[in-house]
Amino acid sequence: MQITILGAGGFLGRKLAHRLARQGSVGTNKITGLTLFDLAEPPAPANPPFPVTTLAGNLTSLPAAAIPPGTTTVIHLAAVVSAQAEADYDLGLDVNLHGTLRVIAACRRLTEAGGTPPRVVFTSSVASFSGGQTAVLADDARQIPANSYGAEKAAAELLLADASRRGFLDAVSLRLPTIVVRPGRPNRAASSFLSAILREPLLGLATDLPVPETFAAWLASPRRAVEWLIHAAWMDTAPLGLDRSLNPPGLRATVAEMLTALETVRPGARALVRAAPDPDIAAIVNTWPAAFAPKRATALGFSTHEPLIDLLRAFIADDLPATRAERGLTA
Amino acid sequence: MQITILGAGGFLGRKLAHRLARQGSVGTNKITGLTLFDLAEPPAPANPPFPVTTLAGNLTSLPAAAIPPGTTTVIHLAAVVSAQAEADYDLGLDVNLHGTLRVIAACRRLTEAGGTPPRVVFTSSVASFSGGQTAVLADDARQIPANSYGAEKAAAELLLADASRRGFLDAVSLRLPTIVVRPGRPNRAASSFLSAILREPLLGLATDLPVPETFAAWLASPRRAVEWLIHAAWMDTAPLGLDRSLNPPGLRATVAEMLTALETVRPGARALVRAAPDPDIAAIVNTWPAAFAPKRATALGFSTHEPLIDLLRAFIADDLPATRAERGLTA
Repeated sequence: MQITILGAGGFLGRKLAHRLARQGSVGTNKITGLTLFDLAEPPAPANPPFPVTTLAGNLTSLPAAAIPPGTTTVIHLAAVVSAQAEADYDLGLDVNLHGTLRVIAACRRLTEAGGTPPRVVFTSSVASFSGGQTAVLADDARQIPANSYGAEKAAAELLLADASRRGFLDAVSLRLPTIVVRPGRPNRAASSFLSAILREPLLGLATDLPVPETFAAWLASPRRAVEWLIHAAWMDTAPLGLDRSLNPPGLRATVAEMLTALETVRPGARALVRAAPDPDIAAIVNTWPAAFAPKRATALGFSTHEPLIDLLRAFIADDLPATRAERGLTA
Repeated sequence: MQITILGAGGFLGRKLAHRLARQGSVGTNKITGLTLFDLAEPPAPANPPFPVTTLAGNLTSLPAAAIPPGTTTVIHLAAVVSAQAEADYDLGLDVNLHGTLRVIAACRRLTEAGGTPPRVVFTSSVASFSGGQTAVLADDARQIPANSYGAEKAAAELLLADASRRGFLDAVSLRLPTIVVRPGRPNRAASSFLSAILREPLLGLATDLPVPETFAAWLASPRRAVEWLIHAAWMDTAPLGLDRSLNPPGLRATVAEMLTALETVRPGARALVRAAPDPDIAAIVNTWPAAFAPKRATALGFSTHEPLIDLLRAFIADDLPATRAERGLTA
């Protein structure tokens, strides 16, 4: 397999690249090369058993070297995220919609030059749905986005499915849940607090909770998301038919449940989470569905989610030391 | 109202323009001007009680004059149709997806210059769904297109809904059924036979039936489609919320029912329809849903469909003489 990761500099892309370097293969397929592409040149994983190319560039003018001849697999993680796409409509459209069209065009060129249609694993999002706190969305639920990011992702799914039907490429679109716990710093995403209420107390820092503790969300750990991306990269796509989009089996959790798990792994930490109702954030996150019934993805072999407590312990093992160091904090 | 019709040279656009000229108003709103845009300069309706501008141009480089300042309403009928979009992927994408993005950009410019967000009535299509002969699609049915035209239309719906949410425009997307009876000549669309089996015998000509008489389709007459476009142009959009797409109340009919109606209005005509099974055409049209349960559009005031026999009589009254003349046939 000759793999490209678009958006390889993000935390999910870096985790995936490291995992591929450690495995050397995907399923029974040996990896023969890896191209890592992002706005800034992404870091290469340590000691890869295959050649790695790192490239800086922009999805608004995708260079041919990002998806070179011989590419079998494209993991397309690059996106302008929800808050930014809402603030800058033109940028969101250019990266999230037109950028994906450029990925389709690049794959089509390889296919029309005689290559096998590359597998494209596309990260769509729970943000392409609405429905709110009471929703439990079935696999055939319509996407009625309440934000530009979600509309662009849903439109891109349609175009990738059509490109698959035409044989330009072979797409699997995963509507990823909100990834928790994100390492690093709080950001301006409306969902930022869902990681912050776990990460910040584990760093010994206070943090604000903008919604009631009864608020529920559809979550996935970084470990689980990486598993799913790898499964999507080598699964048999024949059973997908025309419908290339999947709701992977995430985890529904309330804030109260998250804080209980936090208190279990770090007694006293929960006291660092302060109620600070924010109607603006609540208005956004209240449109997101809190649960899915992901039967199709489960039947297709996507692993079910680990319990909250394991999600927290994995963050402590995988990311807490680096996050602490990055933020100049002592243990 | 200052109205633009994009795709005003097509048979639906011409019928709509004539209807607007005859009415002089839409609902209680007086029409103050009409701009007609198509690849070739479209014909102006006779004796309009308002100024009419006719413009030739391409949706791939939409000129500003097509949607001039002061435009309150855009009826967007322009498209590369299904068979052509399947044969020429780039053209279909450029007109059906990027062309609609150009309409959004044009409306946004007017709005950002201080105008009221223009109502955009967009014609999406039953071809954006799959499901086949046994499907009866509810209003919340997902679009899983089996053709590029349908994928482009469904993606455009998402982008128009998002542009509405952002206040750039105020969209209503109608997923039109197969329009029957189309005037004029047979064309290469897979659905062409659904008009031909009625129109050709009424012209005294033999025609082929590529599917069994049990085949069912979701239909609308040109008269009904024009009614719906006008209703969409002035309805209150507040009840639509985030979901700007509607399945209007078409008519499910089998070929056998269509031929029975034909025989009723023109005894003996049915004998001109010859069984000529065509597996290629059957493979395409068998993916289309044959029925919807269009509760939402009905509740929002879209008129229900007239019976088949009235559809046929309307074709004879409205279009048969002109079609006969156009094709050089004598009565």
